[in-house]
Amino acid sequence: MDKIRIAVDAMGGDFAPESEIRGSIEAALEKSKEIEVILVGKEEVLKNKITGLNLSVPENFSIVNAKDVIAMDESPSDSLRNKPESSLSVSISLQKENKADASISAGNTGANMAHSTFKLGRLKGIGRPTIGTILPSANKISLVIDAGASVDCKPRHLLEFAVMGSIYMNTMFKVENPRVGLLSIGEEKSKGNELTFQAFELLEKSSLNFVGNVEGGDILRGNADIFVCDGFIGNIILKFAESILDLLKYKFKAYSELGLIKKLKTGIIKGVMKESLSDFDYQNYGGVPLLGVNGVSLIGHGKSSSLAIKNMIFKAEEMVRKEVNKKIETEISKYLEK
Amino acid sequence: MDKIRIAVDAMGGDFAPESEIRGSIEAALEKSKEIEVILVGKEEVLKNKITGLNLSVPENFSIVNAKDVIAMDESPSDSLRNKPESSLSVSISLQKENKADASISAGNTGANMAHSTFKLGRLKGIGRPTIGTILPSANKISLVIDAGASVDCKPRHLLEFAVMGSIYMNTMFKVENPRVGLLSIGEEKSKGNELTFQAFELLEKSSLNFVGNVEGGDILRGNADIFVCDGFIGNIILKFAESILDLLKYKFKAYSELGLIKKLKTGIIKGVMKESLSDFDYQNYGGVPLLGVNGVSLIGHGKSSSLAIKNMIFKAEEMVRKEVNKKIETEISKYLEK
Repeated sequence: MDKIRIAVDAMGGDFAPESEIRGSIEAALEKSKEIEVILVGKEEVLKNKITGLNLSVPENFSIVNAKDVIAMDESPSDSLRNKPESSLSVSISLQKENKADASISAGNTGANMAHSTFKLGRLKGIGRPTIGTILPSANKISLVIDAGASVDCKPRHLLEFAVMGSIYMNTMFKVENPRVGLLSIGEEKSKGNELTFQAFELLEKSSLNFVGNVEGGDILRGNADIFVCDGFIGNIILKFAESILDLLKYKFKAYSELGLIKKLKTGIIKGVMKESLSDFDYQNYGGVPLLGVNGVSLIGHGKSSSLAIKNMIFKAEEMVRKEVNKKIETEISKYLEK
Repeated sequence: MDKIRIAVDAMGGDFAPESEIRGSIEAALEKSKEIEVILVGKEEVLKNKITGLNLSVPENFSIVNAKDVIAMDESPSDSLRNKPESSLSVSISLQKENKADASISAGNTGANMAHSTFKLGRLKGIGRPTIGTILPSANKISLVIDAGASVDCKPRHLLEFAVMGSIYMNTMFKVENPRVGLLSIGEEKSKGNELTFQAFELLEKSSLNFVGNVEGGDILRGNADIFVCDGFIGNIILKFAESILDLLKYKFKAYSELGLIKKLKTGIIKGVMKESLSDFDYQNYGGVPLLGVNGVSLIGHGKSSSLAIKNMIFKAEEMVRKEVNKKIETEISKYLEK
């Protein structure tokens, strides 16, 4: 396969454009034969910054101008209407024009989903694109899908999430025959709500490795590889999980203030926590793909460092090379409504 | 007020009837002037056990016979149909017959909710009874309501949960003017799903201390006192939260196996964790009431110890004395559909 061309939104993210510039140049240098990196943003600003940072630019690196920037708190629909020349929008359009194979952004998540879905369109057979989130588990990792791209889902959408999640876990994380669980409020088939009752039927008939209903406690225990749910629930779980470390820090701080020995003990704990709980840190998993769109679009954490940007670029390359989208279309075609 | 009469299901729970017997007798002894405890179950079995345990029985303690037992995994609807003379069913019926003011059980949660709702009926103005769950937070505690009693809720039900949760937190936990948050996927009013959009309108118009949408990460951070949601979501969060300690133990164990110093460090951590994270232990909060039924019915953890049973009895007494149900009826009457 030729070089994979990755468009990088230079203006999104809390540390833009420096993280994006450094990450892009490092990625281009490290994989000079495998990828081409196209940095998208205000050309003047980017060029001055590169000079200011005293960086030299490799051959497989280029800049494409985009005059607008979408703010982190801007409404996705407003940004679609009003900012066709934003760095995010132009990055994604490059795929449409066959000038890039993938795009990544650490900017406004909602805007990224909206622009990607609108511009790239959906894969054949997919009604709702989705993002999954990786959580740590006793069995290594769990994928909760959908994690907030899609709410008020129909049963069919949950089947689509299960298919996309299975292919993603198998292709990108090498999980063999991933176990698909339907997130519910009891293991028995009779426990759940209207949505899960109907989704259960679809999943049971599918050729996926469906293990039945799973509960909230099964995610961290790793009793399935994929936890399928409506994005309203997935997002609440994701945000809840991200807040656990905050509470632990608070509790340990309160404990350390109870006396000197307790303070010493807490000092030791901090180091251990950092080492052994780093899995809870969203950033370690790099960007997450918006699955189900007709292209490769990765969404990064707002706080992405240059290392995170570099890793996202490599992940985008991998998704293109491994033809994740083709696999999704082939698998979902089995379930097209007649 | 006269003595409060508490019926105790002696046969529910993993450690029944011993926990129930000990807890009931201890409670009766400790509050001989305030309460009467009625232990409900197989009379022969209970009497023999009391003799076997060499316990003497106080005056404000009695036994009522019930010949059946509902198993922990029995279907609630089956138990309603087939076990009218179960210890759970008889305990609740004593309220109906004005022979008890409250009932508690550490047995089958679903059966307890079904029997309580069916036998006691609902308070005026309440469409769906609810259970809340207490989680630890940086602000002391958070109430997530509904935690699994009711799924596929309508907007009106979320308003009811908010009203009942506010009164519960104010009356039983002394939280002044409790802050009510609507659990959603973004702080803005425009973020959420069909259910929350409509519930937002109802809550906004109410006289509750409504603080708007809150996210999953706000629960442990304590950014509201009450987190209102459909029971499908509340139950998944509750189960997820209960599993955090399991994952931490697993992670620390893996870390301790990496070497002697790491092992020593982990040894210290275990003690600190136990002391400072005990809030995550569901049992510490004792039983939770099924709010919205025309009576006082407390649901205990299956693993309830005799101490937990005793605390549940005291909590039931408190709920009766503080007239929680009267407060709910008065408040909800403001929102009756015209």
